[in-house]
Order: sequence, then structure tokens, then C-alpha cells
Amino acid sequence: MKNVFEQYESNVRSYCRKWPTVFSKAKGSMIVDENGESYIDFFDGAGALNYGHNNDFIKERLIKYIESDGIVHSLDMYASAKKEFLSYFEKEFLIPRGYDYKVMFSGPTGTNAVEMALKLARKNKKRNNVFALMGAFHGMTLGTLALTTEKAAREGAGVTLENVTHIAPPYYMNHSFDTLGYLKEILEDDHSGIDKPAAIILETVQAEGGIYPFSVDFLKGLRNLCDQYDILMIVDDIQVGCGRTGHFFSFERAGIVPDMVVLSKSIGGYGLPLAMVLIKPELDIFHPGEHNGTFRGFQLSMVTAKAGLEFFQENKMDQEVKRKEKIIYNYLNKEIKPLLKKDMEIRGIGMIWGIDFKSGKLSRAVLDECFKNHLIIELAGRDDAVLKIMPALTIDDELLLKGLEIIKNQIKKVL
Amino acid sequence: MKNVFEQYESNVRSYCRKWPTVFSKAKGSMIVDENGESYIDFFDGAGALNYGHNNDFIKERLIKYIESDGIVHSLDMYASAKKEFLSYFEKEFLIPRGYDYKVMFSGPTGTNAVEMALKLARKNKKRNNVFALMGAFHGMTLGTLALTTEKAAREGAGVTLENVTHIAPPYYMNHSFDTLGYLKEILEDDHSGIDKPAAIILETVQAEGGIYPFSVDFLKGLRNLCDQYDILMIVDDIQVGCGRTGHFFSFERAGIVPDMVVLSKSIGGYGLPLAMVLIKPELDIFHPGEHNGTFRGFQLSMVTAKAGLEFFQENKMDQEVKRKEKIIYNYLNKEIKPLLKKDMEIRGIGMIWGIDFKSGKLSRAVLDECFKNHLIIELAGRDDAVLKIMPALTIDDELLLKGLEIIKNQIKKVL
Amino acid sequence: MKNVFEQYESNVRSYCRKWPTVFSKAKGSMIVDENGESYIDFFDGAGALNYGHNNDFIKERLIKYIESDGIVHSLDMYASAKKEFLSYFEKEFLIPRGYDYKVMFSGPTGTNAVEMALKLARKNKKRNNVFALMGAFHGMTLGTLALTTEKAAREGAGVTLENVTHIAPPYYMNHSFDTLGYLKEILEDDHSGIDKPAAIILETVQAEGGIYPFSVDFLKGLRNLCDQYDILMIVDDIQVGCGRTGHFFSFERAGIVPDMVVLSKSIGGYGLPLAMVLIKPELDIFHPGEHNGTFRGFQLSMVTAKAGLEFFQENKMDQEVKRKEKIIYNYLNKEIKPLLKKDMEIRGIGMIWGIDFKSGKLSRAVLDECFKNHLIIELAGRDDAVLKIMPALTIDDELLLKGLEIIKNQIKKVL
Amino acid sequence: MKNVFEQYESNVRSYCRKWPTVFSKAKGSMIVDENGESYIDFFDGAGALNYGHNNDFIKERLIKYIESDGIVHSLDMYASAKKEFLSYFEKEFLIPRGYDYKVMFSGPTGTNAVEMALKLARKNKKRNNVFALMGAFHGMTLGTLALTTEKAAREGAGVTLENVTHIAPPYYMNHSFDTLGYLKEILEDDHSGIDKPAAIILETVQAEGGIYPFSVDFLKGLRNLCDQYDILMIVDDIQVGCGRTGHFFSFERAGIVPDMVVLSKSIGGYGLPLAMVLIKPELDIFHPGEHNGTFRGFQLSMVTAKAGLEFFQENKMDQEVKRKEKIIYNYLNKEIKPLLKKDMEIRGIGMIWGIDFKSGKLSRAVLDECFKNHLIIELAGRDDAVLKIMPALTIDDELLLKGLEIIKNQIKKVL
Repeated sequence: MKNVFEQYESNVRSYCRKWPTVFSKAKGSMIVDENGESYIDFFDGAGALNYGHNNDFIKERLIKYIESDGIVHSLDMYASAKKEFLSYFEKEFLIPRGYDYKVMFSGPTGTNAVEMALKLARKNKKRNNVFALMGAFHGMTLGTLALTTEKAAREGAGVTLENVTHIAPPYYMNHSFDTLGYLKEILEDDHSGIDKPAAIILETVQAEGGIYPFSVDFLKGLRNLCDQYDILMIVDDIQVGCGRTGHFFSFERAGIVPDMVVLSKSIGGYGLPLAMVLIKPELDIFHPGEHNGTFRGFQLSMVTAKAGLEFFQENKMDQEVKRKEKIIYNYLNKEIKPLLKKDMEIRGIGMIWGIDFKSGKLSRAVLDECFKNHLIIELAGRDDAVLKIMPALTIDDELLLKGLEIIKNQIKKVL
Repeated sequence: MKNVFEQYESNVRSYCRKWPTVFSKAKGSMIVDENGESYIDFFDGAGALNYGHNNDFIKERLIKYIESDGIVHSLDMYASAKKEFLSYFEKEFLIPRGYDYKVMFSGPTGTNAVEMALKLARKNKKRNNVFALMGAFHGMTLGTLALTTEKAAREGAGVTLENVTHIAPPYYMNHSFDTLGYLKEILEDDHSGIDKPAAIILETVQAEGGIYPFSVDFLKGLRNLCDQYDILMIVDDIQVGCGRTGHFFSFERAGIVPDMVVLSKSIGGYGLPLAMVLIKPELDIFHPGEHNGTFRGFQLSMVTAKAGLEFFQENKMDQEVKRKEKIIYNYLNKEIKPLLKKDMEIRGIGMIWGIDFKSGKLSRAVLDECFKNHLIIELAGRDDAVLKIMPALTIDDELLLKGLEIIKNQIKKVL
Repeated sequence: MKNVFEQYESNVRSYCRKWPTVFSKAKGSMIVDENGESYIDFFDGAGALNYGHNNDFIKERLIKYIESDGIVHSLDMYASAKKEFLSYFEKEFLIPRGYDYKVMFSGPTGTNAVEMALKLARKNKKRNNVFALMGAFHGMTLGTLALTTEKAAREGAGVTLENVTHIAPPYYMNHSFDTLGYLKEILEDDHSGIDKPAAIILETVQAEGGIYPFSVDFLKGLRNLCDQYDILMIVDDIQVGCGRTGHFFSFERAGIVPDMVVLSKSIGGYGLPLAMVLIKPELDIFHPGEHNGTFRGFQLSMVTAKAGLEFFQENKMDQEVKRKEKIIYNYLNKEIKPLLKKDMEIRGIGMIWGIDFKSGKLSRAVLDECFKNHLIIELAGRDDAVLKIMPALTIDDELLLKGLEIIKNQIKKVL
Repeated sequence: MKNVFEQYESNVRSYCRKWPTVFSKAKGSMIVDENGESYIDFFDGAGALNYGHNNDFIKERLIKYIESDGIVHSLDMYASAKKEFLSYFEKEFLIPRGYDYKVMFSGPTGTNAVEMALKLARKNKKRNNVFALMGAFHGMTLGTLALTTEKAAREGAGVTLENVTHIAPPYYMNHSFDTLGYLKEILEDDHSGIDKPAAIILETVQAEGGIYPFSVDFLKGLRNLCDQYDILMIVDDIQVGCGRTGHFFSFERAGIVPDMVVLSKSIGGYGLPLAMVLIKPELDIFHPGEHNGTFRGFQLSMVTAKAGLEFFQENKMDQEVKRKEKIIYNYLNKEIKPLLKKDMEIRGIGMIWGIDFKSGKLSRAVLDECFKNHLIIELAGRDDAVLKIMPALTIDDELLLKGLEIIKNQIKKVL
């Protein structure tokens, strides 16, 4: 018999097919289904729950605000909660790092913020083209889908995707591709046929592409190249920002400052929708309302976002991530690598790691076994062949190791 | 001295410029700023707060769910709150009306849902083109911005907006334009140069376009034309759905059934982000994940959305709107019309009304005076010349009349 | 058994299917096939042979030039033949009419010249969009195909046709469409969704669209509207220029001066490929070579073009056309109109006329019968329902009447 | 004082600026200006005059045909001259090589034929995208301009150029780019973001790009790759076909058979406009008239084209080219290479050679000096830094050497 979802919800639903049970409660890194079965969560709301499910510190603030009838919905009117978030974010996160970004709030989804960034980049540079890297994922609305590289996603557009040139990343051609040299040549060549872009957008760690962290040298080189050719550098930190890599902003490890930074997912703190673009002040040329959205002033997110930032600071989440990075790194290399075939790879940084089975069949088998053993984990990358390890940053060590052990055991079973 | 927003937020912020004070609390149709000043709200979160700010019935459900650690963020995994919303919506709203729509959840912004609808329409019909009406507003991401007609918004795209043909509505050419005849001719003509569209999308009442309700005859005629030419009819009910016009769905008054319906804003019930597309089952051809979004399974919205629907049913909001429609209609015609010049128009339906001053200078002056008198009200339409009256459906009669009186007095002052 | 063409030439060949015989010789308005059968030519090379086939005056010049080893191919190097053409054209045709156009030579096909005009218009106005009229035909390459309205042609593009808005002409909606009023409204309306165009391009008599001459009032009104809104007016005089309408330029009858004029077909004089764009000097902002083409300096065309112009002047072809216009007009109205059904129409001007049967089946039957009776005549318009009468301007009266009589007799037979 | 051209012709004129004199007569490889000064022609009408100016064998046929009143202009009606050309071309050129191509005639310019090929490729494969190589030149109308890589040309479009992906050729990145490997990877990668193309189009020797002959291995590899991935291979043989490389078709040296071949320029034989596409029979899916053009049946070109082919056969032009290739190769390597700096390159094949000065300033200086010494020669490539040696295939040895000597002497002077 069809359940409610099969009966009434579109076939487009996807994650529910991988983990076919109905979830009802959640706390930290555990989620519980309607039958009372508990699952370890290594999926983390696709990166939206860096502080875990229903984090008590944030929860308290949220309930208090709702109880006090703080204004909930206010578009981009001035609002107290937003003011407090903005002040705190600037004073505790941006200014201390030497960043003088202004903040643009878009509709509260990552794709909306990327769309906004693209518009602003094109408007500033008066150029249509934007460069994105092969392997990139930046969203599913028409402007961002043109950047996104996943074939199945692109085919959904129904129209031609335009004004984007995709560039092979350094891991192309068996990790030998000279992306910076290639970029330099096509930009210098008056017969490349590649129109100079307004911007280059990238994730410093490709997540959906299959967990590919880019090297510090590459990131620095790209920043220099953007400066040299008057191209804006946009970092999409939606999935790997907010501490995931061991710094609040993923690009900090390279010591670079992008011209724009796109944030969403975990910036909302508690799984509440929020999205924004940080921009250098000299780029701030939109006229009022040139990009807008009904929920861009969703104040509950402002409350949870600020609480999330406080939580990050008080608990020194960046150091915590670096500590746990070692645990994961060691486990993967000592316990799991020996189980893999030669061409399989382990890649990652901070608390985002991938085991690349180079075979979607194998990865799917591992995922299925993990679910049977009550571990929620996702796939990524080419042919979905990469098992994606992305627990909450707050997961306790014991649970982290337990999850890793489940993975190890299922790999053993499958391989 | 610059305030926090001027200092840190992008120039793109807009509403805050009209009502320059910092809001902190809200209840029903009143909002309160940090200085304790109260304002009547005739703006309603641009239509997102049909049940008023911080509606107690919904609030209680929301707090209870958060307190119980119900899962907050779950993408499109199966979740209890979503299940309850889906069941209730189907059983209480769709099935009784004879609709057999399936529900697609997109990222929780209206633009995201419209993007999803466009993709699905194009995929179904294997055609690129879509028709939209002049005056339409459907969103600000690239796919929807191509539909949106506001010049300033379109110029923000930075690239050419494509695959859309704009059709003059019946109010064009001094209300004499034969839109249906024109559509028929361009569709029949093998030399019109207009590529047959996958869909026609419309708001049954153009809101941002300046409060233009379309006639029942026109809506019926359009439905017939879509049937005749195998074109999908998409109703964007983001702003005027959820009871605003006197029916839950705005198209009910015409007795028509669109092929797709886009919902957002007030469907979230409490100002929480939610967006969805209702689709006829035979159109349900997306493969899993063909359109997705991180916050499409934001369960707090499912909780408040269901509570909102219950509130609607229990309080017979549709009848309530029809009752208040008369109050507004009478007031506008008896008290305000006599103050207007001959070419000015009053237009509206249900609880969305516009006073068209045919001059942005005048309308802006009225808005400013209203704010000074503690009424929050917005403009719309060509040259922003239309004062837009859109209070919460729950506003009590006294407050409604008080707001209308403020408008009357400011018009007197300005004209 | 397949003939050479069926065997070796692509299925895309078309006219040969209507008149299935192999032609070998031609003179004036007669063409002769390999079997020695003679045909009256009312087709005129689709308007490329205004001075008839193999006009002796021009022929002599052509042979003399070839015999003398005048340079034949010279791209856009300076060449004597081109110099003589340019001088003669300016001094005898442009300057006396008060036109100060400069001449741009494109590759020698009409579509190439229209592409060039579009580029120059967009470059001058820094706008992407161009307006074209429904019913228009301007070429088959990607840029011009976007203007062309014929459905079957557009479907051949294989990609989306963009940056053009099609406008309903005055004959739309049963000849009641207020094209100028509509244009004014969409240009004034800040919510029309129609991006302001760089140019409006039109044929003053739509030929392929079905022989629709536009009124002097409409042409004047359009010129004024272009001035008022800073839009370039481009007249495509490829088919109806060079005397066809009774003036050398088709727009002379309206007393207007377009910003650009596109010429091809009969400007070559003898059926030799030539195409050019006349532009107002202030628009002349291309850098050298910004649009080019290998055969833009085909000197034999320069020789025949100049000879053609001389022939035009010496024989006062414009007066000749006006004289013959009356013959055709009278014949069609007195002899043929009485044979037609009420909804059928006769339309035309100068020496381009159409009998609109409002049925492709009927028109095709008439065409077939005409061919059997040795009259070559073509169809045009919606559903190919219009029999297109377009003899050489030089046809002698007897032959003209003979052709018309063949038409009359076949209509009798068919209707 | 301005001459006629400066006064009346658009600034877009270009070649005339390099060789500022007015040409009037031409024969073989000599052209003569109005002052009676003679120039050696190493430019060859940009490749349109492979059999020299005003070749007597062809001239005689042309005059005879005109004198006999053979039909000159006949669109795509069956015509005797066309029949003879088609038969001869198939029987003497295609069938003996084992090719079963059908012929499509487009408007008589190369760009028109490439547009036609693109349409047919996209229609066959139902894909929008087409791959072109960086450095490519395929035309200046909107569809072909999207393929063309020259920056200045592209900027003239006035709209975004779309549906083409440019691929780095093997000479990229200091001749180290693995084009085939790169193609394979982006075609295999489900996250490359590169939409699978309908076709790959290329010149086997990039001419305008700077005289880059592609290796036999590369051409064979590309043919295999096209087969493997079901992509059409289109060879643009407009400039380097008709014997230029030592074979009639430039791809013969690689033993490959493209799916489509585009011909223009020298196929006309005498500098008369002609263009066509050769297509494999299974691709012949256009409906009648789906691409057309007024001058596609210009019979004088059919006459000269056939005469040209006969001349080619009778004079064994392919062997002649191979003989002269050695003369040029030896001269360039022995006499000129020693004069060049280390980074400068000599590249070429058959009778198309380039001296790459890697500096537009130097190449322009050499060109100017050559003109002063009565040698007409052109530049190509990046920054116009390549002196392009492309004499008629019929040039006699003495004149060839004389031209080369002029080049040598001017290089000496300039370097």
C-alpha cells in the first residue's frame, strides 16, 4: 500500500528513497523514526546542521524569541533580530579577520544567494560570462543551474543553459591538469573564443562533485589570476563554510579574500532557512530592491544564526573541527584504506571526507548496508561513487567512531 | 550617524527605506518598533501573513514542536510533520474541491517553486517558450525573472532574459485589448514568429502589477484556450492564494482547474518559508532529485502550514474575507473615490485592493503620510502609482476601518 | 529512375518540386527547358530579376568586363568596378533623393546583409532586442532566422531563436490591430516585460508573408515612433526594392527615410549575387573588418549592378512600374475578383500582387495548373495560400496579359 | 581629399587599408592597379582563387555560357548547368574517392553553408551544443560567429553567442595540450557541465587562426572519438579545400571521411560566389526549403565550378601543389628561417604557409614593406602576427620564388 508520500508527493522526492522510514525526532547527531528506531546522522542536512540537530543553546533562544512575540516575518524592514545578527557577525567574524564585507540578504536558499551574486558580478563588470569549475554544484534555479555540472540536473532545465564556461579543475586528466595555466592562456589568447568572465565562482572543496579540496597553491594562484585579469572571485561557502573545513570560512586556510562569499545552510544555525552574500563594499551597486525575496527577512533565522555564531565562538568550533579531522583522517587511513582497491581514493579536509569507490554500484551497496545498520550517510560525485562523510561538527568522539566503524564493516561486507 | 544596517547591509535593501524605524515585536495586525511605537500593518509581509503576525493558534503548535525536539531540518526525507501537513492539505483542501494534485516541494521561496514549475512544464511539453502576461511578477531568479515584467528588476539580470513571450492583458490599450483573440491568432498563424509555449503562467489577480483582478470570463476563456492548444495553465497563487480573494485558491471563483498551482508566502502560515507546486498527476515526470533544495523539508513550516490550514477551516476564513471585502469596497467607493481625480481608479477583490493615483509622486506622498500616521502600507504597479491595501485576513473590523481612515485623511492632505 | 538531382542533391531542394523540368536558357520573361519548352516567368527569381533574364544591356557590359580581364574577385580591396558602382549609385540614386547613406557591402546574400545591419544596430544602441513584424521574412541564418516568422523555417534552427520580439502588424485581428498604439504602450509601460529594442526591421510590403503592403500612414507613424523612442528603423528592401513598388526604394511612397536599408536580389542587376546595407553616417561605428565576407567584393556584380541602375534610369523603370501596376490592378479586379469567393482577397502594389485563396489546397492546385500551362508562378503567405504575381518589371504588356489570362483560366478550372 | 570609398563606403572596409590602391585588372597571380602598377598576389582572394585570377580555361566557358543566354539565376530549380556540375563533381571527385555524399546548396557564401551544416547537425542529433576549436574561423553570421574565435569579430555580435563550446587544440599550452584526452574526459564525466555536442567542426588546417595544420594522428583520433560518442564530424574546407593542401579535400591526407564537408571560396573556380555542404545520405533529413537562399542556384558559378574541377583534373593540381610545397618549404627553411628569432615559427602544408613573428608589430611592418615592393600578402593568427603565404596553386615557379624573395628581403629590413 502506498504511504502518504507515495500517494500525494511528486516522484521528484529523492532522499526518502535511500532511507525509507519516517523520521520524527532529532537531537545532536541522532535522529529517530516513528517506530522509535535511532540513527546516527553522518549526512547533517547536506551540511545545514553543523551544530547538530536541535542544539539546545540555539533552541532556547529560538523558543524565547517566539514566546516573546518577536517579529517573525519582516522582509527587509529594519528589525531588531536582524540588527543583532548583523552586528555580531560583523564584529565577531568579519572585522577580526580583516574583512570589510557588506551583507546582502537574498531569499533564504543557497541558490537564491548565488543568483544574487551572479547578477551583481555581471552588473559590476558589464560582462555576461562567468567561469565555473567542472564538478561544481551551485544550485538548481536557471541562473545557478547553468553553473551546476551534474548532467541529470542540467537536463531538467528544459532550456539551454548559457553564459557560463566550465573549466577543468586541477584533478582533471588524472590530477595533471594545469588549470591556472589553461585559464591564463584562454584569457590571453585573442582567438580562444572564450568571452572574458565577470567572475569565477568555486567551492574551495567541491562537495557534490565528490569531495575534492583544492590546494592552497591553487586557491592563491586563482586569487592572483583574478586580480591580474580584473575578474571577481566568488566563493560558494554554502556547504563547506561555517567551520566545516576547520576555519569558519573555508578560504581562510589559503589566506585569500574573495570578492564575494555566498553563505547558506549552516549559517542558519538550527536548520532554519537563511542565505546571504558577502560583498566587497565597492561592488555594492544594486539599486534598492534590484534583487529581493519575500523571506529574506525571516527573523527566526536571524535569531538562530546569531545563536549559532555565538555557539561557534564559545565552543571554538574551528579548533574542534581540526581535532576531529585527525580522528577521521587516521581512521580512514588506518582502518579503511587497507580495505580499498588500488584505484579507490580517500579525499577530504576538516570534517568533510569522501571514499571514492570509483563505482556507483559499490557505493550504493555500502550506503544501503549502512542504513540497515542505522547510519544515515550520503553519496556524491561522479556516478555517485563517493561515500560522503559529513557529520555534525558537534558530534561526540564516541559516536563519530561508531559511525566510522559501521562504514568500515559495510565496506568489508561489500568489497 | 549610520545605523547598523546602513553600515553593514547592502544598498539593495528597500522596504526599510519606506518605513525607517526598527521593528521588534508583532501581533495580529500591529507591529511595534524598538521605541515602543505601534503601527497598523496593511502590508502583511507582502502577502505572507494572511493569518496575522504571530497568530496564537499557530504559535502554540510551533513552540510545542520545537520543545519536543521534533526534527527541524530533513530535506526530503520522510518526516512526520510533513506527512501530517500533506494528509491534511489533501484531505481538507484538495480532495473536497475535486482536485487530484500531487505536491512538489521546492526550496522554500516562491521563485524556487516557479522555477520548478517552469522546468516541469518545459519537460512535459518539450517546448522552450512560456507565455506570461505583461504586468506579471513571478520572481527574481533567472528563470522567473524572465517572466517578471518590472523593468528595473529585469535590468538587474546582467544577461538576456529568454524563452518567454509577454502577452498584453485585457486591461491593455485602455481596457480594450482582446487578449484571448490575440492569443488565438498568434497560435493559429504559421507566420506569427511566436513559438508555441509549454505553458501560460499568470496570477489571477496581478498584485505587483498594480492590483488587476482578471475577470471570470477571461480566466475561463484562457483555460479553454489552453485545452484547445495543448498548453499548460500555471496559476501563480503565491500572493493571492490562501484565501486572499475570498476562496482558498484564487482561481476557484472562475471554476477552473489549472494544470499547476504555485504556492508560497501565506501557505507557511506564520511567516515561515515554504513553497510548493501542485501538479496534475499525469505531469509528474521528474526523476528523483531533478529539482531539489536544502530547505525543501523545513519541518517547522510544515507544522505552521498545517496549523494555518486548520485555522483557515475553523475560522471559515473564506467567508470572513467575503464579509470584509464588502467593508473595504464600500469604504473605498463611498469615502475615498469622491476624493480622487477622474482618471484615478480603484481596483480589487477580496482583501487586496489598489488605489491607482496614476502618479508615483502622489502615491509616494500618500505612503509617507500614512507612515507618519502609523500605518504601514505599500505601493505597486506602474510607476509605483498604486497604493496597495492588503491587511491580514484576520484584522478586526475596527482596525481595518481605522487604517482605511488614515488612508482617506492622507489622500485628502496630498491631493 | 532518379534524375541527377534526386540522386545527388539533398532533399532540401524545393522550387524544383513545383516546376519539375530542367531549365537551360532564359531571356526577358521567358525561360526554356532542356526540351525546348518555353515558360512565362511570373516568379522573377524571387525578385532577383527585376530587369528580366539576361538583359542585353547588362549582358554586354558583363561580357566586356570579363573579356577585358577586369578583376573579378577582390574582397574589399579598392577596385575600379566597385568605385564606378558606388559613385553612380550615390550620385544618381542617393544624393538626388536627399539621402546621405554610406554603403556597407556584406557577403552577397540578403541574409548576410541583414545580419550585418542587426549587428550594427545593436552596437549603436547597446541593446539586444530587435522588433520584427509577424509575417516577416528576413533570412535563414541564425540572426535573421530569429526575425523570420515562418514556422517551418524557425523549427530548422535547432536552437532557441532569441533577442527578437514579434509585433502584430495592422492587418492582424481582421485588419483591426492598432500596431502603433500597441508599440507605444509596450514602450511606455515599465511593466510590459518587453525590452526596448535597438531597431525595428520591416519590409514595407511583406512579400513572403503573403503580399501585405503597409499603408503610408502606418509607415510614417512608425518612423515617428522610432524617432520618439530612439529606435533605429531598418527597411529590408531586398525583395520589394529596386523599383518593384513603383519607386526605386519601396519606402519613398511614404516620404520616410529609414536609418538603414538592406538591399540584395535585384540590386545585382543580372541575377548576380550582391548585398549591401545603406546606413546613416552617424551609425558608421564598425571597426575595420568587424563584419566581413569573402565575396563582398565580387566585381562582376558591381558591373551588372551599375548597368542595372543605368538601365533603370534610362528606361524610367519607376514610371513603367506605375503604368503596369494599373494593368495588373485592373485585370485582377475586373477579370479575377469576380471569380473569387467572398473571403478571398487581392492585395498588392506596383508589380507585386497576391491572390489570397485563404486555402493552401486551392492555391497549390492553381499553381500546378499554371505550370501545366507554362506559367511559372510562386506561392506565399500563411499556409502558402497566396498566389504571388511578381513578373519582371520589363515584361512586355502582351506577355503580362497572357500570364494573367493563364492565371484566370486556371482559377476558373480550380474553383 | 577623400576618395570615393572613403566618402561613400562604411568604415568597416578593411583590406583596402592594407593595400591602398585601386585595382582594375588581374590575370593569374598578377593584379594591376589603375595606374598600371603590377602586384604579385600571395593573398589569392583569401583562398578563393586557387586557379589564379581570370583563368583562361574557365573564362572561356563563362563567356560562352553568358553569350548563349544560359539561365543565370534559378534558385533551386533544376537547371542544366547545375546538373552538369553535380554529375561531374560526383563522378570525378566523390565517387572515385569512395564518398557517397549528397550535396546541399546554400546561399553562396561560406558562412551560409556553415549555418546550414549546423542546423542539419542539430536537427539530426537533437542536441544544441557544437564543439569548435580555439583558433577557429567559420563565419560572421550569428550562428557561425558563435564558432569563430576572433575576439574582435565576436564583440561585433551585439548579443551573447551561444550553443558552442570551444576546445583547446593540440598546439595549446606550448603544443602540449592533449585535446583528444580532454575531449574524452569531458564527454565521459557526468559532472563536466559540458553538454554533449551534435557535432565537432574544424578546419584541418586553421588558416585565420595562424596556419596550424593538424596532425594526421589528431585527425584520425578525432574521427574515432566522433564515432565512439555519436558526434558528427564537420570539416570546414572553405579555405583549405580544393587542392590547397595537396589533396582536393584537405582531410584526405588523414584517410578520414567527415560526416559533413563545407565548401566555398575556390569551389566557385573563378572567384564566383558558391557554397555547399556535402552530407552523408543518412543525415539528409531537412524538409524541402528548410534552409534556402536566393542565390543558391547561381548558374554562372555552376559553370565556373565545373570548369574549375576540370582544370584541376586535367592539370593534376594536387601533384602540382605537392611539387610547389617543396619549393616553398625549402625556401622558408633555408632562406628565411635563419633570419628569424628563436621563438618565431614557420608552419604550413601544401601551399598555405605562415611565418609567425609572435609580434603583430613586426608582421605588419613586413606586410607594409611587401606592399611597397609590389607583393600583396595577408596576415593571420593571434595578434595578426603571422605572415600568411597563400599564392594561387597555378602560380609559376619563377613568380613564386620572386614573391618569396620579396618576403625575405623585407624581413631582413624589418628584423
